[in-house]
Amino acid sequence: MTETTPGWLSDDELELTRARMPILYVDAVPVRVDDRGEVTHVGLLLRIGPDGTVSRTLVSGRVLHHERVRDALLRHLEKDLGPVALPHVPASLQPFTIAEYFPTQGITPFHDPRQHAVSLAYVVPVAGDCRPRQDALDLVWLTPSEAVSPELQQEMPGGQGVLLKQALSHVGCLG
Amino acid sequence: MTETTPGWLSDDELELTRARMPILYVDAVPVRVDDRGEVTHVGLLLRIGPDGTVSRTLVSGRVLHHERVRDALLRHLEKDLGPVALPHVPASLQPFTIAEYFPTQGITPFHDPRQHAVSLAYVVPVAGDCRPRQDALDLVWLTPSEAVSPELQQEMPGGQGVLLKQALSHVGCLG
Amino acid sequence: MTETTPGWLSDDELELTRARMPILYVDAVPVRVDDRGEVTHVGLLLRIGPDGTVSRTLVSGRVLHHERVRDALLRHLEKDLGPVALPHVPASLQPFTIAEYFPTQGITPFHDPRQHAVSLAYVVPVAGDCRPRQDALDLVWLTPSEAVSPELQQEMPGGQGVLLKQALSHVGCLG
Amino acid sequence: MTETTPGWLSDDELELTRARMPILYVDAVPVRVDDRGEVTHVGLLLRIGPDGTVSRTLVSGRVLHHERVRDALLRHLEKDLGPVALPHVPASLQPFTIAEYFPTQGITPFHDPRQHAVSLAYVVPVAGDCRPRQDALDLVWLTPSEAVSPELQQEMPGGQGVLLKQALSHVGCLG
Repeated sequence: MTETTPGWLSDDELELTRARMPILYVDAVPVRVDDRGEVTHVGLLLRIGPDGTVSRTLVSGRVLHHERVRDALLRHLEKDLGPVALPHVPASLQPFTIAEYFPTQGITPFHDPRQHAVSLAYVVPVAGDCRPRQDALDLVWLTPSEAVSPELQQEMPGGQGVLLKQALSHVGCLG
Repeated sequence: MTETTPGWLSDDELELTRARMPILYVDAVPVRVDDRGEVTHVGLLLRIGPDGTVSRTLVSGRVLHHERVRDALLRHLEKDLGPVALPHVPASLQPFTIAEYFPTQGITPFHDPRQHAVSLAYVVPVAGDCRPRQDALDLVWLTPSEAVSPELQQEMPGGQGVLLKQALSHVGCLG
Repeated sequence: MTETTPGWLSDDELELTRARMPILYVDAVPVRVDDRGEVTHVGLLLRIGPDGTVSRTLVSGRVLHHERVRDALLRHLEKDLGPVALPHVPASLQPFTIAEYFPTQGITPFHDPRQHAVSLAYVVPVAGDCRPRQDALDLVWLTPSEAVSPELQQEMPGGQGVLLKQALSHVGCLG
Repeated sequence: MTETTPGWLSDDELELTRARMPILYVDAVPVRVDDRGEVTHVGLLLRIGPDGTVSRTLVSGRVLHHERVRDALLRHLEKDLGPVALPHVPASLQPFTIAEYFPTQGITPFHDPRQHAVSLAYVVPVAGDCRPRQDALDLVWLTPSEAVSPELQQEMPGGQGVLLKQALSHVGCLG
C-alpha cells in the first residue's frame, strides 16, 4: 500500500496542502509491558538523516483520507516495526495528549519544519518480534530511566523527547 | 477574522482538499456547572437548515493552519456563543474522545456528507452570558436527562447525539 | 491467598471500618477486542443471589493494604475469570471514571448497601480462556448493543449498568 | 467541620485502620490559567515541619465517609487556600493519574510513612485570592519551568515532586 492511491494526495498536492492546513498525525510510543501491564521498556527507532545525523524517533505518520485512526496506527506500527510486532492498540482512542507540531519554533515544544501537524499520541504495548523496516536502521529497547536521560533526549528531534516523557508520565514511569 | 486570510484555503481548494485528506475539527460541549464543578446543564444550538429542518448541534469547527487547538476552540465558542460567554477551556488538551466523521455512513456513529473529519472533543464550562450568533437561531440549556431523551437525540445530526452522550458519560451524568 | 492474612482486616473489623471510611475498590469491564484493538464483546458474570435473584456484574473488589492497584485488578480478574484469562491490564492506571457507591440511594447512580466504596474503573481486554469461579455461575460475552439493552441493564445491580455504559462510551461503542 | 464528627474515625481508630487498609486521598495541583485555559503558574504550599525542615506540598487530604470526591477536593482546597480561592473543580472526575503512596519506600515514587494511601490526582484552576491557612506558612506561585527545577523538586516530600511533574506533563507544560 503506497500513498499514491487515487483519492489521496500526489506529492505536489501534499506540499501545497501542508502550507494551508493542519495535517492529522498519529504518534505511537511502542512499549514492552510485564504480566501486570506495567511498562518495562520503550522502543525507539534509530534513523540516520540525509546529513548523517543520528536521531531517535517514535512511530509517527499521517492519517489518510477515509482511514480510521486505529488503522493509521496499525499501518505505521507495521511499517516501522514489521509485520509480527503484535501491537495492542488501546481499546479507547482517547489519546494521552495532543502534540501540536508547528513549522515555527517555540510555539509549543513540538516542531516540524515541513508543516503544521496535529498528532494524536498513544502508548502501544507490542508483544511480538520487532524488525524495523524502511528508513529505520534499528529499534532499541530502553528502560524508562534510560529513555529520559539528557543524552538521549538530545537525539530526539522535533520535541519527540518531550512527547516520550509525557508518555512515561502517563504510565507512571516518570521517576 | 474570516477563513479567506492568505495562507488558508480558498473555497475551491477546501473542496478539493476535503476529498483528499482528513480535516481536523474540534467539538465543544458547552455546559453550565455548579460551585462544585458538577454539570447541571448542557447548551445546544438550534439551527434551521436550508430545507427547513430543525437541528440541534454542538459547537464545532475546523482548526486552521498555524492555529493552536486551544485558539480554535475559543474562536468557535465565541462565534457560536458570543463574546461574553466566558468559556473555561480545560487546562489539559487531552480530549474526552476522538470523533471520526466519515462521508460514508455506518463506519462510525459519526457522519459528515461533505468530508472525512476527525474531531477532538471537549466539555467546556461557560460562565457568562451566551448570545448565539451567525446561523444559530437560539441556544437552549437542557438538563443531562433532557439532553439524552430520544426525541432530542433525533434532532442532532451526524451522530452528535452520540457525542453528547459520550460527553455526559465522561462527566458522570449518564443516567 | 485469603483476606485473613495478618495485617488485613478481620470480618468484624471490616464491618466496623465500612461504617467509618470510604473503601477503595476496583471495577474491571472485561472485553474481547479484535486485531485492531476495537471492542467486540463485553463479559458479564452471572450470579444467583441468596434470594434466588439473577444478577449480572462486572469484575469488582477491594484493594488490600499494601497492594498495588494493578495487583488488585489482576487478583480480582483471576478470581472471577480463572487463571488462564490472560487479562491485559492497561499500561496507564488513569481510570476511565471513578464510581462512587454510597450506602444511601440517589446520591450518585451507584449504590452499595454495605458501604461507601470508591472504585477506580478500567476496561480490560482479556485474550485467554475464561472459567468463572467462586460464586459466579457463568460468564456471558455480549456485543456492545446487547449489553446496553434495557432488559440487561435491569439485571445489573448497584448502578453497574451505568458503569458499563460509561465503559462502552469510553471505548467508542455507545451506539 | 472537624474530622471527629460521629460516624468518622477517632484518632485511635484512624491509626488502627491505617495499618490495615488503603486510605483514599485526593491530591490537587492548584494552577493559574490564562484566558485560553493554559497553565501559567502552579501554587505550592510552604510548610515548616516539626523539625524545622522546609517543605513544599500540593493540596492533599483524606476523603471522609459518605463524602463525595468532589466535596473532599473543595474542602481541602478551602482548608489550604482559604475561602475565596474560587477553585474550578473539573467537570469530569477522571483523575490525570492515581498516586499510590506506600509506607515502604521504593515500591512506587510515592511514600507516606504513616500509611498506604491511594490518591486521585487533579489539576484545579483557582481564580480567586488565596490565603493559606492552618499549618501552611505561605503559598507561592511558580512558573512551570521553575516548578520542575531540581532544587524545588528536592523540597517536595513523599514523591509529590513527581506528581507535580505528572500534572504539568498532563497539561502540556513539561519542558
